[in-house]
Amino acid sequence: MKKVLFATSALVMSAGFASAEVAVSGDGRMGMIYDGNDVQFSSRARVKFTLTGESDAGLSFGGAFRVDQENYSSNDYRSAARGTGGSVWVSGTYGKLSMGDVVGAAEAAIGDLYEVGYTDGSFAGDVEEISFLVGDGNNLDQGPTALYEYTVNNISLYASMTDGSDTDWFTTVGADTDGGLSDELAYSLAAKYEGSNFWAALSYSKHDEAKEIGLAAEATFNNFAIKGVYMDYEDAFDGDLNELEYTAGLAGSYQMDAILVKGFWRQDKYDLFGTAGSEKYDSFGIGADYDLGGGAVLAGGIVDTDYLDDTVVDMGVKFKF
Amino acid sequence: MKKVLFATSALVMSAGFASAEVAVSGDGRMGMIYDGNDVQFSSRARVKFTLTGESDAGLSFGGAFRVDQENYSSNDYRSAARGTGGSVWVSGTYGKLSMGDVVGAAEAAIGDLYEVGYTDGSFAGDVEEISFLVGDGNNLDQGPTALYEYTVNNISLYASMTDGSDTDWFTTVGADTDGGLSDELAYSLAAKYEGSNFWAALSYSKHDEAKEIGLAAEATFNNFAIKGVYMDYEDAFDGDLNELEYTAGLAGSYQMDAILVKGFWRQDKYDLFGTAGSEKYDSFGIGADYDLGGGAVLAGGIVDTDYLDDTVVDMGVKFKF
Amino acid sequence: MKKVLFATSALVMSAGFASAEVAVSGDGRMGMIYDGNDVQFSSRARVKFTLTGESDAGLSFGGAFRVDQENYSSNDYRSAARGTGGSVWVSGTYGKLSMGDVVGAAEAAIGDLYEVGYTDGSFAGDVEEISFLVGDGNNLDQGPTALYEYTVNNISLYASMTDGSDTDWFTTVGADTDGGLSDELAYSLAAKYEGSNFWAALSYSKHDEAKEIGLAAEATFNNFAIKGVYMDYEDAFDGDLNELEYTAGLAGSYQMDAILVKGFWRQDKYDLFGTAGSEKYDSFGIGADYDLGGGAVLAGGIVDTDYLDDTVVDMGVKFKF
Repeated sequence: MKKVLFATSALVMSAGFASAEVAVSGDGRMGMIYDGNDVQFSSRARVKFTLTGESDAGLSFGGAFRVDQENYSSNDYRSAARGTGGSVWVSGTYGKLSMGDVVGAAEAAIGDLYEVGYTDGSFAGDVEEISFLVGDGNNLDQGPTALYEYTVNNISLYASMTDGSDTDWFTTVGADTDGGLSDELAYSLAAKYEGSNFWAALSYSKHDEAKEIGLAAEATFNNFAIKGVYMDYEDAFDGDLNELEYTAGLAGSYQMDAILVKGFWRQDKYDLFGTAGSEKYDSFGIGADYDLGGGAVLAGGIVDTDYLDDTVVDMGVKFKF
Repeated sequence: MKKVLFATSALVMSAGFASAEVAVSGDGRMGMIYDGNDVQFSSRARVKFTLTGESDAGLSFGGAFRVDQENYSSNDYRSAARGTGGSVWVSGTYGKLSMGDVVGAAEAAIGDLYEVGYTDGSFAGDVEEISFLVGDGNNLDQGPTALYEYTVNNISLYASMTDGSDTDWFTTVGADTDGGLSDELAYSLAAKYEGSNFWAALSYSKHDEAKEIGLAAEATFNNFAIKGVYMDYEDAFDGDLNELEYTAGLAGSYQMDAILVKGFWRQDKYDLFGTAGSEKYDSFGIGADYDLGGGAVLAGGIVDTDYLDDTVVDMGVKFKF
Repeated sequence: MKKVLFATSALVMSAGFASAEVAVSGDGRMGMIYDGNDVQFSSRARVKFTLTGESDAGLSFGGAFRVDQENYSSNDYRSAARGTGGSVWVSGTYGKLSMGDVVGAAEAAIGDLYEVGYTDGSFAGDVEEISFLVGDGNNLDQGPTALYEYTVNNISLYASMTDGSDTDWFTTVGADTDGGLSDELAYSLAAKYEGSNFWAALSYSKHDEAKEIGLAAEATFNNFAIKGVYMDYEDAFDGDLNELEYTAGLAGSYQMDAILVKGFWRQDKYDLFGTAGSEKYDSFGIGADYDLGGGAVLAGGIVDTDYLDDTVVDMGVKFKF
């Protein structure tokens, strides 16, 4: 999403070609993580394609995916060419409709807690990410997810759904299992009010019997930002049939010149399978980013979470191209 | 195959660099298909690289593949870096020689029936596609296929072949099976005569015992186009050892301003394995495209085919970037 | 690494954007190989992304990978997004630090013998490649390898290492096996002296018990180039538990206008497992490149090696875009 776009657009316009474009951008990172036992090297390089066009009547359309989101023959649903990686969209006065591996309505409105570290939280398994029933990698055994977004004045409305069918077809992947969650429609609705220095959002999502209600707000004061999220779940079973009851999360950041300090706390409560007992999982994270300019950021983070046995740390540089 | 090419070429020329180029283009689509039982979302985004260059003596060369055609470690032969996806070519006054996952000579001359729907026929398993013995994804267990094309005046000649060896080697993939079809040379020859508003083509292909003779013609009158294909097969067994006898196909289209209406009919006759009986499979398709300009097309299609138990439908938008 | 870069940089500079860039380049080849029994077609097309940027303080950073080096879900460690394909780097007055699937220190200083043929030696299993303990695809079960390079006057110093941990983690891949080589740190040190028309290099590498000492030099006289490599190994067992003792290699080339003739000889000595015996493997290669200009080269090679039962040959064209 970078100079290639500008450069070519400029020439294209003057030459009278259509405005359909492919922009190529990238990111990278390198550094070390302490996984609680060992220090490990961790690096990556990625490239993203952003496709944009406009119809004669002014309808915008486009798509986007990264090279690593096109893994055609893999069995983990990660192929932009089969609708399970990246996304495509059309957008006009009536709103924006996206399809593919999109975020669900709840996630579009609420989002996650603040990422820490040069791996953007991945070194600790992304515990800053809220668990959403719909979208962002969930239910891809039903093929693509659809997301609709509409903004009028200060209010944004979001709706997303899957198609409720896991039938593998020529043009769309599927699990082809009998019954089960992969054959049940998942949908999500959300609304967001955006003020001058804050926003608040509400969401409702459902997948078969599982229900999720979300509430979140974020405010900025001078160099401070703070965000709170509360998610209430019903019948949201994990792989071991424990049941997630709620997630409460809080995140804050402070910017001092080139330095951005970020932190989050999060608590998840589970009802344990086959017992009357319950368990709470707490997670804490803190990190700092130092902006080196030109797309380079020096960053480090520490996360202490009940999901991992140990405190984990990362430190390195991340790049945008 | 898009503005990036033009933009960079322009600057390159003036600066005196060599003319070797990588152009990046893309496509996308989103919509819904009715698979006979369920309505399913289906979307995709793809990016294509087109490589072009010219030697000092004026020999053109190039290559092309999409990101989804580079799936290095997959076991389904779909890697441009291993010659089983995309293709490379050289071209000069003596004709054009291509290698990789190319179409065979018969398909280069004759092609398929008209595609309908926003998924270009894929929603119905691409029954508009004629079955060719050589090229276009066939015999990739022998590595790349080679295709030679030569045009003089109104006549184009085509020849294609595989290498008849399925030995897996450092530089080329292979099935490494003993005997069987994957170790037998496949080749195809075709000729095409192109008039002012029509063309006619003839082809002959062979893979081991299997034989295929093809005959096709297409004509355009004002806004109408019509195409007919007849393929005669011998010893062309399908996976269940039924034997394909012939395929007869007819396709037509009519353009009214931004609207293009297309349709096809096709009949395939099989001799059934182990019996004296035979069976005919009929397929019908009809669809309409509405050009929204700028690379966007609204399209829908209906296909009724004996290969599927149900009538299937698609409706959506497709994009070119 | 081509015009796209120049074109866009030029415009970007004048418009005052940051200098972070993604350049897209490519290569291709097509031809035939004789594998000792059969003649096989062999072709490929590839695209490479080169990412470059510069921080406000003048620190350079970047990354590079090819599309075929991003194979996310494969189990053969070949994903730039997971640090096992391509690489990322930072570079400044203090030297250059790279991470990912980099070459090790020894290989960075010494390199391989000369490649012959249009497949750059691959048609014979790349016997022109010296066996290095560290880097260039080795030890990726420990995640990325790190390489540090520093040049002062005529002397270049190299150091590389793995992290000695094969633990699979959220951000880095791993073998997760108990004990064994994949859990042992591998490192390599090397120095190189570069004169006006020659260089000489020395290296020391270690992976668990295995040791490797390398010595190499290359000189050019007018149109001639000659290179010699000697590698001494200790406890360097191959898959069959034979032990590689040494590799001695010699390569030469002669350029006449557009024609480049190249050749190499190499001998590897093994102590055979469970016996007092040893065996020597000799390999010879010779080839010629004819530069067609514009990025196209006509090339052919012949290799006779004890690693293969037969003499193998390739002949074809290779392209750069």
